[in-house]
Amino acid sequence: MIQATLFQLDNYGPWTTTPAPRREMDLQTLQSRLYADVAAAVGRHDGYAFYARGDNVIAFTGGMDREDHRALQRAVRNRYPVTLSAGVGGGETPRAAVADATERLQAAGSAQDADRTEVLRGDPVDANETFHVAHYDVVDATGRYTDSRDAFGAYLTVSRVYAAVAETLYREDDALAFFVGGDNVIAVCPVLSRSTYREHVDAVAEETGVELRVGVGAGTRAVEAGSTAKEALELAREDEVSVVCGGEVAAEART
Amino acid sequence: MIQATLFQLDNYGPWTTTPAPRREMDLQTLQSRLYADVAAAVGRHDGYAFYARGDNVIAFTGGMDREDHRALQRAVRNRYPVTLSAGVGGGETPRAAVADATERLQAAGSAQDADRTEVLRGDPVDANETFHVAHYDVVDATGRYTDSRDAFGAYLTVSRVYAAVAETLYREDDALAFFVGGDNVIAVCPVLSRSTYREHVDAVAEETGVELRVGVGAGTRAVEAGSTAKEALELAREDEVSVVCGGEVAAEART
Amino acid sequence: MIQATLFQLDNYGPWTTTPAPRREMDLQTLQSRLYADVAAAVGRHDGYAFYARGDNVIAFTGGMDREDHRALQRAVRNRYPVTLSAGVGGGETPRAAVADATERLQAAGSAQDADRTEVLRGDPVDANETFHVAHYDVVDATGRYTDSRDAFGAYLTVSRVYAAVAETLYREDDALAFFVGGDNVIAVCPVLSRSTYREHVDAVAEETGVELRVGVGAGTRAVEAGSTAKEALELAREDEVSVVCGGEVAAEART
Amino acid sequence: MIQATLFQLDNYGPWTTTPAPRREMDLQTLQSRLYADVAAAVGRHDGYAFYARGDNVIAFTGGMDREDHRALQRAVRNRYPVTLSAGVGGGETPRAAVADATERLQAAGSAQDADRTEVLRGDPVDANETFHVAHYDVVDATGRYTDSRDAFGAYLTVSRVYAAVAETLYREDDALAFFVGGDNVIAVCPVLSRSTYREHVDAVAEETGVELRVGVGAGTRAVEAGSTAKEALELAREDEVSVVCGGEVAAEART
Repeated sequence: MIQATLFQLDNYGPWTTTPAPRREMDLQTLQSRLYADVAAAVGRHDGYAFYARGDNVIAFTGGMDREDHRALQRAVRNRYPVTLSAGVGGGETPRAAVADATERLQAAGSAQDADRTEVLRGDPVDANETFHVAHYDVVDATGRYTDSRDAFGAYLTVSRVYAAVAETLYREDDALAFFVGGDNVIAVCPVLSRSTYREHVDAVAEETGVELRVGVGAGTRAVEAGSTAKEALELAREDEVSVVCGGEVAAEART
Repeated sequence: MIQATLFQLDNYGPWTTTPAPRREMDLQTLQSRLYADVAAAVGRHDGYAFYARGDNVIAFTGGMDREDHRALQRAVRNRYPVTLSAGVGGGETPRAAVADATERLQAAGSAQDADRTEVLRGDPVDANETFHVAHYDVVDATGRYTDSRDAFGAYLTVSRVYAAVAETLYREDDALAFFVGGDNVIAVCPVLSRSTYREHVDAVAEETGVELRVGVGAGTRAVEAGSTAKEALELAREDEVSVVCGGEVAAEART
Repeated sequence: MIQATLFQLDNYGPWTTTPAPRREMDLQTLQSRLYADVAAAVGRHDGYAFYARGDNVIAFTGGMDREDHRALQRAVRNRYPVTLSAGVGGGETPRAAVADATERLQAAGSAQDADRTEVLRGDPVDANETFHVAHYDVVDATGRYTDSRDAFGAYLTVSRVYAAVAETLYREDDALAFFVGGDNVIAVCPVLSRSTYREHVDAVAEETGVELRVGVGAGTRAVEAGSTAKEALELAREDEVSVVCGGEVAAEART
Repeated sequence: MIQATLFQLDNYGPWTTTPAPRREMDLQTLQSRLYADVAAAVGRHDGYAFYARGDNVIAFTGGMDREDHRALQRAVRNRYPVTLSAGVGGGETPRAAVADATERLQAAGSAQDADRTEVLRGDPVDANETFHVAHYDVVDATGRYTDSRDAFGAYLTVSRVYAAVAETLYREDDALAFFVGGDNVIAVCPVLSRSTYREHVDAVAEETGVELRVGVGAGTRAVEAGSTAKEALELAREDEVSVVCGGEVAAEART
C-alpha cells in the first residue's frame, strides 16, 4: 500500500472572515508559514507534502505513524491561531491512497463543522508499495520564458503546462501532480513505463507548445523516489533527452 | 499609474541543484517562508504579493519606495541562503505594470546570471490610478467539493476554475488573477464594469460547471481595493448573488 | 523625549498551562518566532526590540506611530495562538521611557487579566532626544572562552558579565542593557561621557575578571545610534582600545 | 550516560560584521528563528534545547542519532545564510555531558575557523541515565513584579534570580540552569534530593529576596522529566509549597 495523509485546517473559511475579513497578506503569511512547518515535518519522515489548496495539504507519509501525526497537530495548535485535522489512508495507487485518506476525514465531519477540531482518522498502513516520483521541468525555461516573457505571462504558461500534465496523469494513470514552483511539477505515480512518460511529454508539447523534461525515480518513500527523480532530471538536462528513469526505477519503467 | 514589482530569486535554479539536488521539502520550506516574509513586508505597505512561481513573486506595491524595496532585499540576504532582485515598474493596467517591472529586471541580466545579485531596477511611480481587486470564491465549495470529492479531485477542480478565470481576464481585460488558497482567486484588474464580471462568472460556469461568486473593490492601493472586495464577497454570499461591487467602486463598475 | 514600547503577551502564563502544561520546546519555538516578528517589525521602523523576558519585550520605538503598533498587534493575532498588548511611553532617559510605557500598560489591567486583550495604551511622543547605544563585546571571547571552556561555563561567564554591566548602568545611569547573544551586550543609554563607559569597563574587569570593549553611537533612533556603535566597536577591535565613541556621538561623550 | 549536544554557528561573529556590521534587528530575527527551528527539531526527539548564547545552543538530545543531527544541519544550511556544527557527548551528569560535547567540537577547530563548516563530532551515547528536570518560577511574579515594577526592573530581578540559581546548581550539583522566559528557569540536574532543592530555594530567597517554587521530574529523556516537572510545579502552585517532586522522581529525591 501507499500511505497518504490529508491535512485540513479546521473551520478555516469562517475563521478568515470572523469577526471581519482578515487582511489577505496576513492570511498568505499564515498559510505559507503553516505549510512550511507541515512540509518540514513530513520531510523529516522522508515524505512529501504539497501545498495544494493551502487549507488542504496533500501528503505522502509512508513511515509516519499516529504519534508523528499527533506531534504535528500539537505543534500547529501551539504555534498558530488555527488547528489541523488529518485523515490517513492507504491504496494501491497515489490516487486511491488520497481518496481513502479523504474519506476517513470526511467521515469525521465537515471541514466547516465548528465542532470538528484536531481529529485524526484512519490508520497508518504497511507502506511497502513501490511508487514513482516524476519530476518535470521546462526545457530552457529561463531563456524562453523567464528572461523573455512578462512575469505573469510566463507564470500562466507554466500553469497551463501544469494543468495539462496533471489532468492526464490523474485521469489515465491514477497519478497526482503538483506545481512546486519555478517551472517544476512533481507527480506521485504508480509504477509507469518509460513510454508512458514519453507520451505524456509529447502530448503536453502538442497541447501547449512547451517542451518538458522528466526524471523518474522509484521507491517506497517519497524522498527516496524523489531524490532519484531529481538526479535523473539532471541527467536528462545534461544529455538533452526528455525522459530519464533513474537508479532504482523498477523494471517496468525501463521498457 | 499602477505600480508593480517583480521579485526574483537570484540564480535560484542552479542553487537548488548545487552541489547536488537539495531535498524537495527543504526547498518547499524555504520558498514558503521566504514568500511569507515578502507577503508580510508588502502587506505592511498596503500592497499585495502573490506567490506565482515562488522564485518569481508578483506584487502590487504602490506606496513602496526604493528604500522599502532595499530593506526587504536586505532582510532576505540576512535571513536566507539566497538573495532577491527586484524590478519596479508602472502602467495603466495591472498587466502593463507587471510587464514594465519585468522588462526592467530583465534588462539587468538573466535570472540565472551568477553575476546579477540583488539588483533593484526601475523606479517607483506616482501610483494614483484607481484599479479593482476582484475576489472570487466557489459557491458552496465545502459542501460540493471539499466534503464530497477526494482532496486531489477537489484541488484539480479549483485549478481548472482558476485557469479559466485567469486566461480570460489576462487576454480580454489586462487583468492578472492568482490562486490564493482554498477556493479563492484574487484578480487585480483595471476598472471593469459589473457586467464584465458577470459575463466572466457565467462563462466559467459554462466552461467548468463550477459556480463562482465575486466581490469587487476599488482603490489606488491593493489593500484598500482588496478589503472592499472581501466585504463585497461576504455580501454576495449572504444575498446569494454572483457579483457585488463594494463601497468605493468607481462609477464604471456600477453599470 | 525617548519613546519606548512595552509589548506584553496577554494572559500568557495561564495559556501555557491550559488545559495542561504545554511542551516546553513548543513554547520556546512560539516565543522565539513571535519575538523574531516583533524584532523585524520594530527594526523596519529603525527601532530596537529586546527579548527580555520573552512574554515582555522591551523596545525603543521612536518613529512608530499608533497605526504601526496596531499593525503589529494585528499581525500577531493573525499568526499566533496568543495576542499582544502594548504600552507606549516617553521619558528623558531610557529608564524613564520604559517606566512610563510600563505604567500605561499596567493601568489597563493585569498581565493575567483574561479580559485585557490587545490593548494599546499611551501615545507616541516627539522622539527628538539624542541617546546613546553602547555595544559591548568580550575581548577575544572565542579564544579565551568559546574555544577553551565548556559551553555552559562560557555561557555563565557571559551571563555574569551581562549582570555586572546591566546593574551598574541601570542604577547609576538610567541606562538599560540587554544580552543579545554571543558575547554581546547592547545598552540603550542617555548621553554619557567617554570616561563613564571606561569606568564601567574597568569595574566589570575588576568584578568578573573579564575584559570588555565598547563602541558607542548617538542618535534619535536606535538603528542610527546602534549602527554607529557597531562601527565604533569594530574600530575598538582593530585598534585594541576599550572604548570608541563613533561618528555622531554628542560632544559630551568625547570628554 | 546523559547525552548532550553543543550546536554552534560556524564563523558567526565574523559573518555578522562582513562586509559591514549587519543591522541588529536582522541578526536578532535570524538568531531567534534559527533557534526556533533547533528547539522544534530537538523537541520532536523528546529533547530540550536552550538558547544560551544563541550562536551556541546547548541541548539534551538522548535518542537523537547522528542522522537526526545531520538532518538538522542540512535543514539549517538549506534555510539560513549560516551553517551549523555540532558536538555530541555523554557524561554521568548534565555538566559532564555538555563538557564532553564541547571538547569534541573544540577538537574540530575554532568557532571562528573559516574552514570548519558543518562538522559533526562525537557519537550518540546509550542515554539510559535517569536525570532530573527542575522547573522554577517566581511566587506571584505577576502581582509582585510584572504588574507593579517597571518592565526593565522586573526583568533585572528575574535575571538576578536566574544567576543565583544557575551559579549554585553549576558549582555544587553539576546541574545546568537556563532562563526560558517569563519568570521561568529550567535546570537539568543529576538526581538530587528534595532537601537540596529546598535549600537552594531558601538560599535564593535570602540572597535576592525573591521567593521561588520548583517542580521536579525525573526521566531518561528531557521531555519526560520536564513534563513531570511542569505538572509538579502546578501542584506546588495550588498547594502553595515550595518544592514538589512529581510522579516518577527517583527515590533519592523523596527524602
